[in-house]
Amino acid sequence: MTNSRALDFRSDNVAGVPPEVLSAIAAAVQGSDSAYGADETTGRLEARLAELFAHDVAVFPVATGTAANALALAHVVPGWGAILCHREAHIATDECGAPEFFASGAKLIALDGEHGKLSADTVADELARELRGVHHVQPKAVSISQSTETGAVYLPEEIVEIAAACKPKGLTLHMDGARLANALAALGCSPAEITWKAGVDILSFGLTKNGAMAAEAVVFFDPAQGQDFGFRRKRGGHLFSKMRFVSAQFEAQLKDGLWLRLAGHANAMATRIAAGIRALPGIGLLYPVEANELFVLLPESAIAKLEQGGYRFYRWENDRGPCIRLVTAFDTTAEAADGLVRSFAEAV
Amino acid sequence: MTNSRALDFRSDNVAGVPPEVLSAIAAAVQGSDSAYGADETTGRLEARLAELFAHDVAVFPVATGTAANALALAHVVPGWGAILCHREAHIATDECGAPEFFASGAKLIALDGEHGKLSADTVADELARELRGVHHVQPKAVSISQSTETGAVYLPEEIVEIAAACKPKGLTLHMDGARLANALAALGCSPAEITWKAGVDILSFGLTKNGAMAAEAVVFFDPAQGQDFGFRRKRGGHLFSKMRFVSAQFEAQLKDGLWLRLAGHANAMATRIAAGIRALPGIGLLYPVEANELFVLLPESAIAKLEQGGYRFYRWENDRGPCIRLVTAFDTTAEAADGLVRSFAEAV
Amino acid sequence: MTNSRALDFRSDNVAGVPPEVLSAIAAAVQGSDSAYGADETTGRLEARLAELFAHDVAVFPVATGTAANALALAHVVPGWGAILCHREAHIATDECGAPEFFASGAKLIALDGEHGKLSADTVADELARELRGVHHVQPKAVSISQSTETGAVYLPEEIVEIAAACKPKGLTLHMDGARLANALAALGCSPAEITWKAGVDILSFGLTKNGAMAAEAVVFFDPAQGQDFGFRRKRGGHLFSKMRFVSAQFEAQLKDGLWLRLAGHANAMATRIAAGIRALPGIGLLYPVEANELFVLLPESAIAKLEQGGYRFYRWENDRGPCIRLVTAFDTTAEAADGLVRSFAEAV
Amino acid sequence: MTNSRALDFRSDNVAGVPPEVLSAIAAAVQGSDSAYGADETTGRLEARLAELFAHDVAVFPVATGTAANALALAHVVPGWGAILCHREAHIATDECGAPEFFASGAKLIALDGEHGKLSADTVADELARELRGVHHVQPKAVSISQSTETGAVYLPEEIVEIAAACKPKGLTLHMDGARLANALAALGCSPAEITWKAGVDILSFGLTKNGAMAAEAVVFFDPAQGQDFGFRRKRGGHLFSKMRFVSAQFEAQLKDGLWLRLAGHANAMATRIAAGIRALPGIGLLYPVEANELFVLLPESAIAKLEQGGYRFYRWENDRGPCIRLVTAFDTTAEAADGLVRSFAEAV
Repeated sequence: MTNSRALDFRSDNVAGVPPEVLSAIAAAVQGSDSAYGADETTGRLEARLAELFAHDVAVFPVATGTAANALALAHVVPGWGAILCHREAHIATDECGAPEFFASGAKLIALDGEHGKLSADTVADELARELRGVHHVQPKAVSISQSTETGAVYLPEEIVEIAAACKPKGLTLHMDGARLANALAALGCSPAEITWKAGVDILSFGLTKNGAMAAEAVVFFDPAQGQDFGFRRKRGGHLFSKMRFVSAQFEAQLKDGLWLRLAGHANAMATRIAAGIRALPGIGLLYPVEANELFVLLPESAIAKLEQGGYRFYRWENDRGPCIRLVTAFDTTAEAADGLVRSFAEAV
Repeated sequence: MTNSRALDFRSDNVAGVPPEVLSAIAAAVQGSDSAYGADETTGRLEARLAELFAHDVAVFPVATGTAANALALAHVVPGWGAILCHREAHIATDECGAPEFFASGAKLIALDGEHGKLSADTVADELARELRGVHHVQPKAVSISQSTETGAVYLPEEIVEIAAACKPKGLTLHMDGARLANALAALGCSPAEITWKAGVDILSFGLTKNGAMAAEAVVFFDPAQGQDFGFRRKRGGHLFSKMRFVSAQFEAQLKDGLWLRLAGHANAMATRIAAGIRALPGIGLLYPVEANELFVLLPESAIAKLEQGGYRFYRWENDRGPCIRLVTAFDTTAEAADGLVRSFAEAV
Repeated sequence: MTNSRALDFRSDNVAGVPPEVLSAIAAAVQGSDSAYGADETTGRLEARLAELFAHDVAVFPVATGTAANALALAHVVPGWGAILCHREAHIATDECGAPEFFASGAKLIALDGEHGKLSADTVADELARELRGVHHVQPKAVSISQSTETGAVYLPEEIVEIAAACKPKGLTLHMDGARLANALAALGCSPAEITWKAGVDILSFGLTKNGAMAAEAVVFFDPAQGQDFGFRRKRGGHLFSKMRFVSAQFEAQLKDGLWLRLAGHANAMATRIAAGIRALPGIGLLYPVEANELFVLLPESAIAKLEQGGYRFYRWENDRGPCIRLVTAFDTTAEAADGLVRSFAEAV
Repeated sequence: MTNSRALDFRSDNVAGVPPEVLSAIAAAVQGSDSAYGADETTGRLEARLAELFAHDVAVFPVATGTAANALALAHVVPGWGAILCHREAHIATDECGAPEFFASGAKLIALDGEHGKLSADTVADELARELRGVHHVQPKAVSISQSTETGAVYLPEEIVEIAAACKPKGLTLHMDGARLANALAALGCSPAEITWKAGVDILSFGLTKNGAMAAEAVVFFDPAQGQDFGFRRKRGGHLFSKMRFVSAQFEAQLKDGLWLRLAGHANAMATRIAAGIRALPGIGLLYPVEANELFVLLPESAIAKLEQGGYRFYRWENDRGPCIRLVTAFDTTAEAADGLVRSFAEAV
């Protein structure tokens, strides 16, 4: 452990990998098996996800969230298309233009919304704007993040409403599920309820932030929509010859609900910290804490003290004052959470 | 082990991962560490490779050979550029057009050559062709595979000659080193001698076929040429958040010469099989066996018997008759090799 | 004349071509001359523009403004780059994503500003924003429109300030000069003063809206920056085999200041209409009238009456009420202008 | 006339524009008309071409052959697709990779064939090659040139056979008709017979080489296949604001069969020269003369004498000896043709 785990709240992707996942990888990469996704582990994955989502699916494992998002969107958005997303969406701010690159220069239309969420009204308003024919890119997809970049969770009915706003116009609804498990753990609903039942067509199903080493998958709820996606993945360099190491991570996480326990724990740690903070004077929360992220408003002097104490986190730009983002993970301990709250108390 | 390892000669990427590599991965993904390549393991990698190659390098780990090749070539070849390569090169035949995709539609010019090797004369002849100004794509890079797709190995002086043919015209020399270790084990020379000392500018350094799980790296011998490559990798979706799992594989393989031992063993098994085959009537070798691949000419009836015996391999198109390709790996046992030879003897 | 010219205020590109331009085209396409821009007319163009701008230039004629803008920006902005422009810029709203397409998915960052103009402060603020390394596209160019989409004109000193904000950070300053002549006619300054002397690096020099048939040119004030641009133009399909028909239009327009007379007349007609409108109650101007465009606020009932009268124009979305855009051209007559004002008077 | 027309045989695109075409342009660009192809002239074009081809069509005028070819192919070939074409095809050798650029890096597969023509057998053989799934680009289109780069003409039945080889596999058949008129004039058949009736799906209909100034069109014989093509054209920068100048050239050329008379004349001049040459000792024809191009084998000393006489032409690489290409055009006079033959006689 190169940094003190108890002090590192920069992101859930600074965490490592739980033993169940490591064991599964180790087991999967023994002996001969077919390359490029024709292996047995990968062969089981599609059925496993169909069962999980209670729906037919076409599944394409990849190993980064950026790949999953960019490849998925490129598959349904032509170069002259536009993708509606939240201004803070990962695809808009953190992928160095990967969606635009893969989608031949398609455009992202960044929309505002509370807590990182798009509202159906905002989507509908944007879609009601007059388009100037061939002079104007054409909206072809809406992408929402579940949970959001600011730690909120879409309710199933909110997704249903967004779908209702965009589906009649022929748009595809994509969900960036880099923190899908955190959302599910928070909502307590089934994977189906916040995906295809709510109108989601394509899911970037991410596990890396939830304790996988590198495991994401593009999931098409209409398998026909995934036709030829294998070519797109291959020429993007995202078809692994020993694909089984990716698929094994999915298998391990989904076994006996491990993924939801890991995410539930991360959420619980965030809730625990939030509870502690709410009791402290001079500290506030910028956003509701619904998943595993906290955005804490506090004096600069307190930030400095935390840093001196060895804590690691990122600043968060906003217009209400100094703010830091804290992210809990599957391996954040209750002691670490309580220690953080104590440090907050001492810092203010 | 899902298939009988002893019977599977389809490729070196159907093999698994040796314990040293798995242990290193497991160790690397413990506890907190910075994401996106800012971790400690990755932090050590550049210095390690600089030492290995006895030269300054800029190193960018990725996880597939296709990504390494396509990103590397795209970084030095504009859309109006052309890449000279062998007709059988992996970039030309097996990457579904990934180099063209990443390089804005640059063109691959496929050249002939014995045993998968380009000759300096062939390169020079192509470069001597009249170009019709802006109407014609401009050669900007030569890409060679070491070892080649047909199991041959470039001698250092052959690379020197190719470099001499293309460098004065401003071309970049790229090496697809998906089987670099096999070449080095065969040649017994230093990594420097067949790379920068011979004129190679950029190396796709692959370990996946040599027992890594997913570990490749783009190595720039002129670090300045690698400027901004990080952006290209990121927007290609090839920057891993837990990059340490890739870098750890490099570290484990390079430690105490493991990679050369693994490759040397694979080569030895190929040599052993070749020796056995040469003694058999009715069987021939299409190409010299210099690394870990064999191309065996034999009657259809013999191929059928091998298949009935459970052996797995691919057919190889050529104009000299029925032919199969066999690839040995780090974990091909002497027993398996001898068993294969016996099966050949029985089959013919 | 298929529509009544006197009633058509939709745009300056609904106008035709003055006889001087037609004659020049007709003369240029007589007899043999070299294809693909090696003709004599095109051969004279670079020297002619160097003289016009009093500066060395590299000049690449094309035939649409979208081609000029997209090719120019793609030449200086990598895929991971960003282009700062006004929210209403033609490149952002009216080119169906051409800049993103040609620039491998580079991103346009749309900024606000009065009257379609960027301010140096806005540019500086955007450039002061924290970039998250490889996760974030990197600003590489600023593009300004002269005159702007809403009929305003940048003063030379305003451009100087923008250049001062972006040049120290290594950005290229591009000017979309689709209505450059209108700006020059309004300012009465030299072409040099609002281009390279003010810090502009690359100009999309448009004449089509000023009475050319199809004549635009990408002008590099640092000829070295234009290196290899010919390849980019060719593979974009924008190298004309009988290029002389484009170059002849430049020659005809620049001869004896025709282009400035044409633009000056268009501006004068806009001013004349504006003067007439200002005297009318119930009608307002949304923006200052500095070039050849008017944005007129008036009651819906008045808009309907104008339409019944056969007038043609476009609506303009804004938050101050019903508004129409009127564009005058080189061939708008004083009678047409006065007739329009009378119709306004009758309509309100 | 900047060069002596009678001595210039470099290409048909060094010729100018006949008066009928110039008059039509001049008439079309008078007065107001809608921009971006919504004008009346363009409005008539689709019906005119439907009549010409006796078939429903979707028509998209552009102004270069490279644009027509690249946009058309990109519309039916995904990035992972391949386009089969002749080794000498304009798209393969003279467009600086434009098809690859527009088609996201799709691959051109260059095939051999006599006189610039593909044979159905060659196409069938290529399509019979084993594809390695996602590792291999997938053939999606065949492109043929009518007339070919070496002056030959496909008979309707030859096209029918190619269509029969590729249509059952789902490929689109594209015709590069940069010299369609020359082929038609040579064959004496209807436009329908060598296009849709023979199985052609998309035609790049070129008139520029036949005396237009800049007039090409992408013609879809299945209008549904042209859906969204307008977006592709726009973001390629190929939608002209005064499109009527392009459409007027089509109208003028198609009126009363002018285009076939122009092409017929060019062909006749080539035939006349060929007849004269055949009578000369020491001179040979590399290819049959079926349209308006001649490839003449003659001693270097003779080439030098022609050059000294002021003749202009291009060299043609081949393995039978020194060779020059001569191209006749609509305005090549009989005197010029006879003068050339005399000069040949004197030179050898």
